Amino acid sequence: MNKKSSDLHGNAPDNSPVALLLIDVINDFEFEGAEPIFQHALPAAKKIAALKNRTGKAGIPAIYVNDNFGKWRSDFRNLVAHCVNDDTRGRPIVELLKPGADDYFVLKPKQSGFYSTTLDLLLDHLGARTLIMTGFTGDICVLFTAIDAHLRDYSLLLPHDCVVSQDKKENERVLEYMKRVLEADIRWSSEIDLKRESVVRRQESQCSAVESLRSRRQHQALGVSPRSMR
Amino acid sequence: MNKKSSDLHGNAPDNSPVALLLIDVINDFEFEGAEPIFQHALPAAKKIAALKNRTGKAGIPAIYVNDNFGKWRSDFRNLVAHCVNDDTRGRPIVELLKPGADDYFVLKPKQSGFYSTTLDLLLDHLGARTLIMTGFTGDICVLFTAIDAHLRDYSLLLPHDCVVSQDKKENERVLEYMKRVLEADIRWSSEIDLKRESVVRRQESQCSAVESLRSRRQHQALGVSPRSMR
Amino acid sequence: MNKKSSDLHGNAPDNSPVALLLIDVINDFEFEGAEPIFQHALPAAKKIAALKNRTGKAGIPAIYVNDNFGKWRSDFRNLVAHCVNDDTRGRPIVELLKPGADDYFVLKPKQSGFYSTTLDLLLDHLGARTLIMTGFTGDICVLFTAIDAHLRDYSLLLPHDCVVSQDKKENERVLEYMKRVLEADIRWSSEIDLKRESVVRRQESQCSAVESLRSRRQHQALGVSPRSMR
Amino acid sequence: MNKKSSDLHGNAPDNSPVALLLIDVINDFEFEGAEPIFQHALPAAKKIAALKNRTGKAGIPAIYVNDNFGKWRSDFRNLVAHCVNDDTRGRPIVELLKPGADDYFVLKPKQSGFYSTTLDLLLDHLGARTLIMTGFTGDICVLFTAIDAHLRDYSLLLPHDCVVSQDKKENERVLEYMKRVLEADIRWSSEIDLKRESVVRRQESQCSAVESLRSRRQHQALGVSPRSMR
Repeated sequence: MNKKSSDLHGNAPDNSPVALLLIDVINDFEFEGAEPIFQHALPAAKKIAALKNRTGKAGIPAIYVNDNFGKWRSDFRNLVAHCVNDDTRGRPIVELLKPGADDYFVLKPKQSGFYSTTLDLLLDHLGARTLIMTGFTGDICVLFTAIDAHLRDYSLLLPHDCVVSQDKKENERVLEYMKRVLEADIRWSSEIDLKRESVVRRQESQCSAVESLRSRRQHQALGVSPRSMR
Repeated sequence: MNKKSSDLHGNAPDNSPVALLLIDVINDFEFEGAEPIFQHALPAAKKIAALKNRTGKAGIPAIYVNDNFGKWRSDFRNLVAHCVNDDTRGRPIVELLKPGADDYFVLKPKQSGFYSTTLDLLLDHLGARTLIMTGFTGDICVLFTAIDAHLRDYSLLLPHDCVVSQDKKENERVLEYMKRVLEADIRWSSEIDLKRESVVRRQESQCSAVESLRSRRQHQALGVSPRSMR
Repeated sequence: MNKKSSDLHGNAPDNSPVALLLIDVINDFEFEGAEPIFQHALPAAKKIAALKNRTGKAGIPAIYVNDNFGKWRSDFRNLVAHCVNDDTRGRPIVELLKPGADDYFVLKPKQSGFYSTTLDLLLDHLGARTLIMTGFTGDICVLFTAIDAHLRDYSLLLPHDCVVSQDKKENERVLEYMKRVLEADIRWSSEIDLKRESVVRRQESQCSAVESLRSRRQHQALGVSPRSMR
Repeated sequence: MNKKSSDLHGNAPDNSPVALLLIDVINDFEFEGAEPIFQHALPAAKKIAALKNRTGKAGIPAIYVNDNFGKWRSDFRNLVAHCVNDDTRGRPIVELLKPGADDYFVLKPKQSGFYSTTLDLLLDHLGARTLIMTGFTGDICVLFTAIDAHLRDYSLLLPHDCVVSQDKKENERVLEYMKRVLEADIRWSSEIDLKRESVVRRQESQCSAVESLRSRRQHQALGVSPRSMR
């Protein structure tokens, strides 16, 4: 079927070389063993909220990549309402990170944000090639999503203080792993220079893009890049 | 992240060998050239509504597979509200086919309901192997979705009076094509014996299922079925 | 694991905005009902061979997209050898279209060349955005592959005399369909101006590529293109 | 196109609840930094060869999942020939693990054996739900493939002495991770009781299969399994 070709979405960024991913931040934290994660997750949520505020001003779109605990019957905004209105443990985090009207969301059925979802196509539509990844938990859903992003040739930037795992040491290890194997840029959220990021990435994705894209893909797609091969 | 393992969804069918697909029925029909399709679509919508009423009573889940004209920012239920509240041309159809609390929905970015969506996984979760396909338009989104369903070994049942294309003759041709190439069962919606369908399919998916599934897949997956190969 | 980063493949085109697909041309034609298709397929194979000769000279890579009747144990070149050495009905076609050392091949488990194969990634690696599609049969494997190509935003060019279906009238209809719905360019193989094609496509994929790619994807990915939406 | 419906493949196992994967074992080890991996890989290759001998006798199919350093122009058996005939460093490993006529193979363009390949469909065809995973390197291609297998609900068994990473300590860590997060069964290859494995898995995939499959998928597909969710 057809749809109108006009875009009703005001001043929202529809085109950006960088995107911010918020992974599983909309959660009621009402499952067994949620308490210890929640303790780490709340301070990280504050950092993510501050970063999201900055990326929004820099014209970088935010994409919620979230478990669908409504099981394909409830909408994303219902999940948000449930977390807040039913006074769940996750409420303070969800209130900090409440999605705005311009934010995108993708519901994922499994741990990876790319598996059986439209995320790849949405990022393609936005023109995003660099992903700032934040959320919970670092050693499962964030790692699975990061690996799938790497397979698809995205560049990764993971703010250290915006990624949380159940175990702190495991969180360090997984960030170390993503740096070594996925060539992720790991740094504190305060150290991210969005203007530079955006400018650099935007330039990269300008005219020379075709060549660099091609040669990059040529190398990575067929696996001849020395680092990605081991 | 984790979620509660309880299922909150009452008496809704979570397991069924058959599923009803409603393709692109939530539409405002406010695009250029929509009027002639709308003329055919309204009577078909009445047939679909009657069929959905019957499948619901037979415990067959309904899945809305719909274009996301909100562009990954609006929820499915917002699309419904837009069609009804903004007094669009599509309103009478949407009112006939308003989704209920137990219905599932999958937003698709392109013509095929399977491309870059979670539909295959949802059907797997439901245990559905037979799809009753209805909606608009027969020669584009319904056909694309049917072909993708056939590639994934689903059996297809298309009620003649519940599928609409822009051109009537083209609609006949595409149904003929789906019968010949996709081995689809084409019949009037009134001729579908849901009790029989459900019983037959349920038996098929019982004990002998593994064998039949295997041998079916063995044949189809590697392409030795004489009919599917040409 | 790692691989050497050098490319050993001599003067073969590793980068081209256009690619030639040969669909299911390597076939022994030893199945029931193969005779009538073979009668149409042999003259088409001569046209495909002539076209392949021209595309080769123009630096356009050829990709065999073929059923794997060896069932993931035999190699592609074994399939070729079987067709020729076992004196099968398909032998004259296979001899006309014998793959060269620089040709690519993708084995497909089902009718569509994109389903569960690496074709999309290979085309991405080559930088190809326009596909010249040839082979058998037009109304099944060629159509399925063309639809999947359209979903992925490739431009299609189908030489009328290089596509064969079991039924001649059905072949006309399916070409008509691909023109109308998939926006395919349908013409005689002799009418394809490869120099122009190549030059035009190469320019298109130069500097303005990012913009045009983006705006094209923006429109098509989210389905706002008026023609693709019906 | 069509193919003959007969299966020419003699006594090879076409149906098995368990499959043995050999990941990137066909390699010339002629890249920078290959020497240290090779030192660990050779003894592991001996263990893999012994295990493959046992699985073969137990009717468990072997699938080579291998980088395609021939870049979609060379066949898998050419890769084997290159490693052996060109007297490469990898030669002794390839000779130990030379594929037999009944073995399957899947060429992968990236690190994960599932990404852009036909592996999932081949396993579905075989009816395999448990994967014995072996090969190089544990922390990259084996891990990526294991994560993708877990997303698709396969059970994993990783023989400790048949998986090798560049760094020994990292190898231990990644096996520990797969045990914890992917619920993989980690044990020495000598501790695998293939008769038991096969019998148990075959029973599981018999009559009760539909139920267990459904409930398993129901839990895992929508992410309500407590362990997989964190």
